[in-house]
Amino acid sequence: MSPDALLAQVKFDEHGLVAAIAQDAQTGEVLMLAYMNADTLRQTLETGVMTYWSRSRQKVWVKGETSGHIQHVRGVRVDCDGDALLFAIEQVGGAACHTGHRSCFYRRAENGVLVEDTDAVFDPGQVYGK
Amino acid sequence: MSPDALLAQVKFDEHGLVAAIAQDAQTGEVLMLAYMNADTLRQTLETGVMTYWSRSRQKVWVKGETSGHIQHVRGVRVDCDGDALLFAIEQVGGAACHTGHRSCFYRRAENGVLVEDTDAVFDPGQVYGK
Repeated sequence: MSPDALLAQVKFDEHGLVAAIAQDAQTGEVLMLAYMNADTLRQTLETGVMTYWSRSRQKVWVKGETSGHIQHVRGVRVDCDGDALLFAIEQVGGAACHTGHRSCFYRRAENGVLVEDTDAVFDPGQVYGK
Repeated sequence: MSPDALLAQVKFDEHGLVAAIAQDAQTGEVLMLAYMNADTLRQTLETGVMTYWSRSRQKVWVKGETSGHIQHVRGVRVDCDGDALLFAIEQVGGAACHTGHRSCFYRRAENGVLVEDTDAVFDPGQVYGK
């Protein structure tokens, strides 16, 4: 799609960022929430590969560039006030989270504690070589 | 659940806010993204009713307090780095969006334009008296 039409609808915050939710296009599972600036949003739309702005590292972040677990864009939605995006994506390698879990939201609050209710799909030590 | 255990895991940003995604507990549809501060997160956990911090109005925002379309909390997850929450919710009144649509993400990018692909569930003029 043309990036310009979508970019015109997005309201970036004071840091030039917009929230981007990645949802599994098949299962509807929410895999992660990260942020994009105008350049990485444009790159995402042009390449079809989810490309965020890393706030911690302050650099362009092609999701999966190290692990190979990239995210293919299957669709994108913008919310009513234009400050959040919802991407339907196809997750390569089965896991979005750097911990090896399928979703970054792998911890559920239950009875006052956080419970990990899914197993890791990969071993971060092997994938990232740490 | 005890709010303290969850609050201890959350990393609030420089404005004291954390992103909160509301996902339909039954269908998995992502309904909205908004923000909570520590007080409204605590209130959400204690009351079981989604309570955000309105950045535009700079006030506590019990979702649905005007329209009656409140959101009951059915579960909550925290992401790997603690700066995003994913709530499974039950949406009263069928619509989360102030436009009357079920989801705030009712516009899909397609062929360079944004397409509304769901009908409004209610008439905002009637609900909000405008």
